[in-house]
Amino acid sequence: MPAYVAVVGASKATDQDTQDAEAVGRFLGERGAFIVCGGRGGVMAAASKGCAEAGGTVIGMLPGDDRSDANEWVSVAIPTGLGELRNGLIVRTADVMIAVGGSYGTLSEVALGLQAGLKVFGLHTWAIDGITAVDSPGAAVNQALASLLG
Amino acid sequence: MPAYVAVVGASKATDQDTQDAEAVGRFLGERGAFIVCGGRGGVMAAASKGCAEAGGTVIGMLPGDDRSDANEWVSVAIPTGLGELRNGLIVRTADVMIAVGGSYGTLSEVALGLQAGLKVFGLHTWAIDGITAVDSPGAAVNQALASLLG
Amino acid sequence: MPAYVAVVGASKATDQDTQDAEAVGRFLGERGAFIVCGGRGGVMAAASKGCAEAGGTVIGMLPGDDRSDANEWVSVAIPTGLGELRNGLIVRTADVMIAVGGSYGTLSEVALGLQAGLKVFGLHTWAIDGITAVDSPGAAVNQALASLLG
Amino acid sequence: MPAYVAVVGASKATDQDTQDAEAVGRFLGERGAFIVCGGRGGVMAAASKGCAEAGGTVIGMLPGDDRSDANEWVSVAIPTGLGELRNGLIVRTADVMIAVGGSYGTLSEVALGLQAGLKVFGLHTWAIDGITAVDSPGAAVNQALASLLG
Repeated sequence: MPAYVAVVGASKATDQDTQDAEAVGRFLGERGAFIVCGGRGGVMAAASKGCAEAGGTVIGMLPGDDRSDANEWVSVAIPTGLGELRNGLIVRTADVMIAVGGSYGTLSEVALGLQAGLKVFGLHTWAIDGITAVDSPGAAVNQALASLLG
Repeated sequence: MPAYVAVVGASKATDQDTQDAEAVGRFLGERGAFIVCGGRGGVMAAASKGCAEAGGTVIGMLPGDDRSDANEWVSVAIPTGLGELRNGLIVRTADVMIAVGGSYGTLSEVALGLQAGLKVFGLHTWAIDGITAVDSPGAAVNQALASLLG
Repeated sequence: MPAYVAVVGASKATDQDTQDAEAVGRFLGERGAFIVCGGRGGVMAAASKGCAEAGGTVIGMLPGDDRSDANEWVSVAIPTGLGELRNGLIVRTADVMIAVGGSYGTLSEVALGLQAGLKVFGLHTWAIDGITAVDSPGAAVNQALASLLG
Repeated sequence: MPAYVAVVGASKATDQDTQDAEAVGRFLGERGAFIVCGGRGGVMAAASKGCAEAGGTVIGMLPGDDRSDANEWVSVAIPTGLGELRNGLIVRTADVMIAVGGSYGTLSEVALGLQAGLKVFGLHTWAIDGITAVDSPGAAVNQALASLLG
């Protein structure tokens, strides 16, 4: 069974966040993990692109009810129609979480993840007790996947 | 982009429903469609088995929050934790619906599907205005996929 | 603790359904029950009006995220933003259900109610096994409230 | 139409948080506002008690599907069965938010609130950009209600 890794971050991302997210996606795709994300733009699109181009699977949990809102790299598009409550579905579907940069939406996902007992690894994201800060996409992926072996 | 076809039916299925659901799953898998189902037993498991053995993709929307509740043929398991409200997510994720046999849960999916404007094809299921009754798994799949071409 | 009674029916109602729903609401309000409904027009508005004018409490579970979509007789308006998935919340919040007339949305509520083990009393509604058909608003309310005393 | 004020905070509260929450609830009840909360213990119970004893209305959005999980001061108990996704319903139902102390669950509510554009007033809670820190229950209530007049 593959690992389901939530990759969360803002739809308006900095260049650094975009590069980081794409590398996170690529490493996860190469390692056979499934990405769970919000299926839209910014960090979500960059992680989706990296994962899909490495042959991986991208689950996109869309806030609206129109599948065509998904970015082009999403493999399985779920138009939840739940708005921001879909953040909670991303958390439930994930075994572990990587946060890249971040908006209030990202913060809600991190908070719900920590509350649900997920390990959360962060690249340039919110400074919240419980997040393990990492300094590179490779470290994020290595530590996230290693945390599931315990 | 593949078609997303909801295959809905009861977790306690008759032998006929089980055979029909497995054939529906197999034909959908052979035609490259994605199955969306509740991810559990009975009709859901039979359709998942048929689809997976034909090389297809099965999205399982689980009512609970434990991924291990999914049957073994589910490709992408979504532990929604929404209970029966996940029936509404199955409907939103689908482009068209095939109902096989059926319980009250199936009836709720059919009703939500019809309300959302989905075409619903039924094999030995509820006699509700709006369902197109078909007499074989092949007819169900052919008509369901043909309805998306319009 | 008051009884929570779901009153479900279509937003486009016949004159008969509107009169029935208002009477159901009035009797429930007079008996101190809470109405749970979809908070919009048609059967929902008629039941809300009857209940509110009798001094009762009306909980309106709105599909959208704008409180002002509620009809004027709703006491507590919950803008769920869940779309038709809010039908499942109405069911969860109710102890018993009365269906008046009905659309596919009503059918989904009846089906989810029966699946959850609620008693469902019906006035000119779907002919589904498990619904207890009644012939007047007074009978609907009397039987619904009596069913909770067991 | 009354103001709907979310009062959010942890189920395990300090003595200070409990006193603050009860005062917040009391002031809101005296001012005719509706409290929206998670309906359980700790900060939620204290705010509910304060509000109910002042004659106010308390809407309790419960995570489980059993109404009897509500604390005794809840006026309208909604057993959502959504688990922590009910945090998002609390946010949608609210016009403004007051956070008292706080756990990861509280942080998710604050984050979803800020993302949805709600004003959030905080007493001894998370130090997140966007929260307006206040130094007393009276200030929290005064500023929260004043923010809605604008």
